[in-house]
Amino acid sequence: TGCVSSKVNFRTKHDKNTNVRVSLPAVCFVWEIAMVVLFGIFVRYNEEADAHWGEYKKTHNITTDMENDFYYRYPSFQDVHVMIFVGFGFLMTFLKRYSFGAVGFTFLIAAFGLQWALLMQGWFHSLDYSTGKILIGIENLINADFCCGGVLIAFGALLGKVSPVQMMVVSLFGVTLYAVEEYIILNLLHCRDAGGSMVIHTFGGYYGLAISWILYRPNLNKSKHLNGSVYHSDLFAMIGTLFLWLFWPSFNSAIANHGDGQHRAAINTYISLAASVVTAVAISSMTEKRGRLDMVHIQNATLAGGVAMGASAEFMISPYGSLIVGFFCGIISTFGFKFVSPFLEKHLKLQDTCGIHNLHAVPGMLGGFISAIVAAMASESVYSKEGLIATLGLEGNYANRGAGTQGGYQAAGTCVAMVFGIVGGAIVGLILKLPIWGDPADDNCFDDEVYWEVPEDEESIPPVLEYNNHMAHKCDSNYNLEQL
Amino acid sequence: TGCVSSKVNFRTKHDKNTNVRVSLPAVCFVWEIAMVVLFGIFVRYNEEADAHWGEYKKTHNITTDMENDFYYRYPSFQDVHVMIFVGFGFLMTFLKRYSFGAVGFTFLIAAFGLQWALLMQGWFHSLDYSTGKILIGIENLINADFCCGGVLIAFGALLGKVSPVQMMVVSLFGVTLYAVEEYIILNLLHCRDAGGSMVIHTFGGYYGLAISWILYRPNLNKSKHLNGSVYHSDLFAMIGTLFLWLFWPSFNSAIANHGDGQHRAAINTYISLAASVVTAVAISSMTEKRGRLDMVHIQNATLAGGVAMGASAEFMISPYGSLIVGFFCGIISTFGFKFVSPFLEKHLKLQDTCGIHNLHAVPGMLGGFISAIVAAMASESVYSKEGLIATLGLEGNYANRGAGTQGGYQAAGTCVAMVFGIVGGAIVGLILKLPIWGDPADDNCFDDEVYWEVPEDEESIPPVLEYNNHMAHKCDSNYNLEQL
Amino acid sequence: TGCVSSKVNFRTKHDKNTNVRVSLPAVCFVWEIAMVVLFGIFVRYNEEADAHWGEYKKTHNITTDMENDFYYRYPSFQDVHVMIFVGFGFLMTFLKRYSFGAVGFTFLIAAFGLQWALLMQGWFHSLDYSTGKILIGIENLINADFCCGGVLIAFGALLGKVSPVQMMVVSLFGVTLYAVEEYIILNLLHCRDAGGSMVIHTFGGYYGLAISWILYRPNLNKSKHLNGSVYHSDLFAMIGTLFLWLFWPSFNSAIANHGDGQHRAAINTYISLAASVVTAVAISSMTEKRGRLDMVHIQNATLAGGVAMGASAEFMISPYGSLIVGFFCGIISTFGFKFVSPFLEKHLKLQDTCGIHNLHAVPGMLGGFISAIVAAMASESVYSKEGLIATLGLEGNYANRGAGTQGGYQAAGTCVAMVFGIVGGAIVGLILKLPIWGDPADDNCFDDEVYWEVPEDEESIPPVLEYNNHMAHKCDSNYNLEQL
Repeated sequence: TGCVSSKVNFRTKHDKNTNVRVSLPAVCFVWEIAMVVLFGIFVRYNEEADAHWGEYKKTHNITTDMENDFYYRYPSFQDVHVMIFVGFGFLMTFLKRYSFGAVGFTFLIAAFGLQWALLMQGWFHSLDYSTGKILIGIENLINADFCCGGVLIAFGALLGKVSPVQMMVVSLFGVTLYAVEEYIILNLLHCRDAGGSMVIHTFGGYYGLAISWILYRPNLNKSKHLNGSVYHSDLFAMIGTLFLWLFWPSFNSAIANHGDGQHRAAINTYISLAASVVTAVAISSMTEKRGRLDMVHIQNATLAGGVAMGASAEFMISPYGSLIVGFFCGIISTFGFKFVSPFLEKHLKLQDTCGIHNLHAVPGMLGGFISAIVAAMASESVYSKEGLIATLGLEGNYANRGAGTQGGYQAAGTCVAMVFGIVGGAIVGLILKLPIWGDPADDNCFDDEVYWEVPEDEESIPPVLEYNNHMAHKCDSNYNLEQL
Repeated sequence: TGCVSSKVNFRTKHDKNTNVRVSLPAVCFVWEIAMVVLFGIFVRYNEEADAHWGEYKKTHNITTDMENDFYYRYPSFQDVHVMIFVGFGFLMTFLKRYSFGAVGFTFLIAAFGLQWALLMQGWFHSLDYSTGKILIGIENLINADFCCGGVLIAFGALLGKVSPVQMMVVSLFGVTLYAVEEYIILNLLHCRDAGGSMVIHTFGGYYGLAISWILYRPNLNKSKHLNGSVYHSDLFAMIGTLFLWLFWPSFNSAIANHGDGQHRAAINTYISLAASVVTAVAISSMTEKRGRLDMVHIQNATLAGGVAMGASAEFMISPYGSLIVGFFCGIISTFGFKFVSPFLEKHLKLQDTCGIHNLHAVPGMLGGFISAIVAAMASESVYSKEGLIATLGLEGNYANRGAGTQGGYQAAGTCVAMVFGIVGGAIVGLILKLPIWGDPADDNCFDDEVYWEVPEDEESIPPVLEYNNHMAHKCDSNYNLEQL
Repeated sequence: TGCVSSKVNFRTKHDKNTNVRVSLPAVCFVWEIAMVVLFGIFVRYNEEADAHWGEYKKTHNITTDMENDFYYRYPSFQDVHVMIFVGFGFLMTFLKRYSFGAVGFTFLIAAFGLQWALLMQGWFHSLDYSTGKILIGIENLINADFCCGGVLIAFGALLGKVSPVQMMVVSLFGVTLYAVEEYIILNLLHCRDAGGSMVIHTFGGYYGLAISWILYRPNLNKSKHLNGSVYHSDLFAMIGTLFLWLFWPSFNSAIANHGDGQHRAAINTYISLAASVVTAVAISSMTEKRGRLDMVHIQNATLAGGVAMGASAEFMISPYGSLIVGFFCGIISTFGFKFVSPFLEKHLKLQDTCGIHNLHAVPGMLGGFISAIVAAMASESVYSKEGLIATLGLEGNYANRGAGTQGGYQAAGTCVAMVFGIVGGAIVGLILKLPIWGDPADDNCFDDEVYWEVPEDEESIPPVLEYNNHMAHKCDSNYNLEQL
């Protein structure tokens, strides 16, 4: 029984250097110091978060603190916050040996990304031109979280194949691109996209797919044995799925108009998501042997209704409209996981670990086009005059834009998001091909051991030795390995 | 060591056909299409979620969007939403090999159930008679979630022993029965039941028990080796327990009266739950060897205080009253798990996987009767005149009903819930006995492999000793330990 | 293959009696009955939760239920509630075989502690002198949860080394001490400490460290094999980390002033926490081989920014000020875990299971002193006159206290919290040394089997072949099953 006492070392040499001991701390420190400097120069509280709020209330005839936007949006903000960190983080823990990376790098990416997003989005949307300061409040925090959502979608395509340093680069460029496309779509084209079907899901999806396409790994099947789940990793992933699914009504209503806008956005999303669960289950069962359900579909395609409802959440799409959107997106997304992803991998050399093509890129794009149709069909009789103006934002410079025209712009905005995602992702992908980022070799993917101190007993020393290490003191003569 | 390299296949023939590849998709599609049609005919937004809200505000002299019911109830709604899907779903993951089914079928049942509940409850409670439309808002979403809670309680008794198709049937009838008994109890009898001790827990508990009693499996002990937990499945279950426990104050206050009603309901529930944790721990320790705690008690009996406080949550039961309710229900529930459930299984042929008898049926019924006593004792000196009317709902047709009479009706409502649960459950149970639903054989229960694609590595090749303990009955000649 | 069929029993005799079958139920019942009596005598609803609220509104010219404090604070309360039970509970599940104890004892401690806290804090803060009653509302629930947070921090130092009965004692005294030091710091010294850097983290941290120091176990390394994590226990712990991290803005803003106070506290905390993630990752990577990240740092040091921001959260520290606080506290905390804790254990005989020294004691103390500096620098130009008074609380008896003086009191308050923690903890530690509490022997720590019924299959029989299945591809010649 020599095996019992001998030291075992399973770590073998791979042909790439994955040491990030210099690069990761360097990137973290340089970027964080830049944040401190830029926040010092630019970022201040807005009038609702500033101690001058008492004076502001008086000068603006506000009689109660309850009118502070904080109380309209904070509960939704917290739900969004959970979605970004717990939802995305745990959804990606499904891989058997990359759960630390899933949840840990999500944490890092989003924590850095939201700081950079506060700045980038602040310059575009919250700049006080008289002082040159960015004035932030609760809505900025929500938007920063949204922006990180876009980057984390991209992470889904790259999961297990990139280094944390590369993901910091993906975040830096991703947030930057996001802020620009968001400005073009929401401000220049004046699209409505409360839940981000275009700016978050379409952009984030195609951004990640383009990067992954550039970083194609022909020999990735060498890591195939780790590219799958185990029983409990699938359960951890369901924590992510459920918190995403449950809080999606908050996601789509978080920055909607006060009152009926937030109310309607929550209802529409709630209904759409319910439908996509039922149809995703139906298709999953229909396409597997003996009608068995596939966890990949349940973890992902059930969410497609929320993605697709993003741009239309505020609209008077009506409850049955929401139901129809969820109905078809649940089907389309499940088919995507079952048939499209394998096709893309085989014929387009597109490796998409989490299947973001089926959950974000396609449903997001569909959501954009659905919003175009719904906006174009909007009428005063359904919305009321005031309601139509408020919901489609046809005020000020856009007062003369009709519903039909608005529909056209919604479609255009969706295309802008796609173009930004694909072109931006291709460029970032090329940057990531530089051999300086510490990414793993093809036979070393999907493995936490590369970037994490993994507890010894389950990984490098197999259970038989674990017995020896941990139980020796407890062992009694009834149990004797020699007898084997 | 032939066993090591040989393929092992533990899937053996069982005497029932569990193929749901036709039935499950068929049921999902037929019912979902029915939802689309019915939603199209009936469901619209109510005045607070409709784009006409701006006009409505003006005509009703509402000065701020904050008065939209959305802001009163949305945070509670989200907590309830988490309880239904994460709370119930994860609470039932405690079984070692049925966690996919627990969390996945909960997802399916509730996602379908809430759609049907929006319709059924809408017809009874939210029908605009002038247009024939159901007008929905945030309170409808909460009530739909509540209704699914009732069905999921019933699932607890059936866990591991039914097919997903059967659960869809249980949901369809359960939601229907729920809507009717709720209408009788809340509208005809005019009971107060903010947190659903009667309409949710008593009904759901007895509904599930009656179904399970009809579906009695005499040879269920053939699946005994899977009817238990492993270390990490117990931890997953604690996620469910804690989210249920934490958000229960939101559950009981979600549809309570604005202002002091919601405030008091949250406080009462918070206090009652705290007490039941302490007494459940005490009884658990007292009844086990060496004072060791039993996870079953901690996962379940700690919640009894929330169940029992449901119907009285809004009342002026006073903080010590809440404490007393939690105190005794923690004890009763723990005793139930320890002694009553084994008794029921042995002598009444009642197989109750999660012990819903002890967590829902009995504490729910007690909660109903407690509310009768508390209502009967209500007085103007304690409530104020206005407060008594608002809290007991003694307005309009009920203005002449005294507190004592109201107490009688509370007791009657509890009985109605029991009768609906038992009779309805018996009928549904008989329907489920038809041999067309794909339910598992007695030796095939509590096993995710029946309805799920389970990751290969942990399932089909057993750890050798575990094999010996648990799988002996499944062993085939390909696998032979002697070969070692 | 005798091992296969023979019964294996690893439970051996240890030299301490850990039977708590009498003591645990006794303590639970005696204390819970005391709660019922004391609640009966003292605790009532406050005017916002009482059925007289309708009358109160009229007499106080309140026009809407939305002005009920419930709606200002309930969403934050629920987030805090999740932090205490899920956050703390799951953060401590990282140990491989003490996860039941972590989450279960947290549940018990906090559920009991919050009842006693409602009383203790009520006598100091919510006593109606005219009636001698404690009048409670939503803010009391938040403060009771905060108080339990302090006790649970102390539990972090003791994790795995004490019995549940001892933890009940730690809670009873901890809550008592907490209420007194809180009264001294907030009322007598009139410090500002919205997020509890002083009263919660500094007190709780030093309280736990002092107890642990008194209970020093010279032979704790006999349990060393269980004082570590496994892969999935680290993932469970990340659930705790993330919910703490995500909801910390609610923690620090929960009892802040309505309006800009809550708004600003949330923003400051959000920003500070983001910075500490990035710097904790940087230091973790820098100090480990090949730049690998250590889960201990990610699970803990990422939270330091929230702790340190507690006392200054309401202040106009400005977004870049928050960023700087998080920046340095992430570094300091990670260094603490890496270098200070091992030093303390070796040279000061301080065994600190969860490293609360680095996450709570030191960052809490720093947070107190940071608040002293920020308060001292406060000026009317930054805060406005009204804002300065509201934020620093310079009203009534304190109207003449200047910002500089307030800064001095903030520093003094921090020292009071330390003294209470150290002295109180030392005394409680001596009480816990009595040989009557059923604590485990040195070779029996960190093991759930002592106080829990643990499912059999994973514990007492090691999976011998699982190694063979999963690791075969990694196997090198050192390990050869043939040798068996």
